[in-house]
Amino acid sequence: MLPEDKEKKTINVKDNILEKAIEVFSKHGYEGTSTRMISEAAKVNISALHYYWGDKWNLYQASLIRVNKRIHKMHLKIGEKIRFCSIEEKIDIAVKDMTDFFLDNPEGSSLILEVLHVNQNSKNEIDDEVKKSIYKNLSEVFNILYSETEPSKERMFEAFAITYLFYNLIKGKAYFQQVLSITDEEYKNYINNVIKKRFACILNEGN
Amino acid sequence: MLPEDKEKKTINVKDNILEKAIEVFSKHGYEGTSTRMISEAAKVNISALHYYWGDKWNLYQASLIRVNKRIHKMHLKIGEKIRFCSIEEKIDIAVKDMTDFFLDNPEGSSLILEVLHVNQNSKNEIDDEVKKSIYKNLSEVFNILYSETEPSKERMFEAFAITYLFYNLIKGKAYFQQVLSITDEEYKNYINNVIKKRFACILNEGN
Repeated sequence: MLPEDKEKKTINVKDNILEKAIEVFSKHGYEGTSTRMISEAAKVNISALHYYWGDKWNLYQASLIRVNKRIHKMHLKIGEKIRFCSIEEKIDIAVKDMTDFFLDNPEGSSLILEVLHVNQNSKNEIDDEVKKSIYKNLSEVFNILYSETEPSKERMFEAFAITYLFYNLIKGKAYFQQVLSITDEEYKNYINNVIKKRFACILNEGN
Repeated sequence: MLPEDKEKKTINVKDNILEKAIEVFSKHGYEGTSTRMISEAAKVNISALHYYWGDKWNLYQASLIRVNKRIHKMHLKIGEKIRFCSIEEKIDIAVKDMTDFFLDNPEGSSLILEVLHVNQNSKNEIDDEVKKSIYKNLSEVFNILYSETEPSKERMFEAFAITYLFYNLIKGKAYFQQVLSITDEEYKNYINNVIKKRFACILNEGN
């Protein structure tokens, strides 16, 4: 094997473990997940998992960073798309695209919702890098929609509120649909409406 | 022991197991909890736990019903208190009292948030009685605040959205405070404001 091929393989193995970790954590939660479950899902030896990623806590934090990077990319893409739109159009398009993104990537919502649970129970503290990536994602929504570069704490709290609402509506899809007996399409419309209204409310407060 | 004393003791043991179950489930989640953990917390033999409550799933559902009953009682109390107030006062007082209640009973929020997770993974289906008690709690908020006795599905979706937002803000208290570096008092005010605004928005849409 050529040296660059070996390096590539290493990256692939390491990356594959992380991807499977995201899946398993989002399905079973931090406490319900063992490194063995992840190594089995990734079809690698458990010692390889520990070699590349250290302990469960490290792998969990790496999963959070990866998921937040995806959200960040999605934000950038939306930001480009709506750059020259009116604020009403901005909210319209952004919420539609964000809903589609989160519905397509439900593991992101599950994983980030879990942080609340983990943070409550764990003796480990969430890493500063993770916190920063979450904070950045939240503040950039204000940047994209309202051109606010340094939102106040109150605005950031609003961002948390909307974002976690989003995650709940995604994670709770099956459950809420069951209780309300509505179709996929209706549910998607409800999410769009409720989140759009929320952003519109914030807009009015900002003025 | 007199027969009525024995009956009383039975109720106490059974009840105590349920109370401990609520604590353990809310701390470790459904998957992270074993009946052994609950029997240890309740200081009873595991066979006693199974005798009174059957399996983990049954005990989990009973915990949900108990927690929802508490929320229902809180709603009734608030309903009485604000009965003759203006709608603005109603929202003001109700949100303040609800925030206090949920901050004082964080295990309720954790447990109900967990339903989304459990429902996604479990082969068991949430019991109709549990669903009904959740649905009833949500619709009675509309009844108390806006005198709507049969809210539409869209309104019910709004109720879900606000309620789950509430639960997240309670469960995420330590985490959000850390990230935003704000005090307990500030955090409470933020919750009050964000939820009040949400109810006020719904009011305007209803008209």
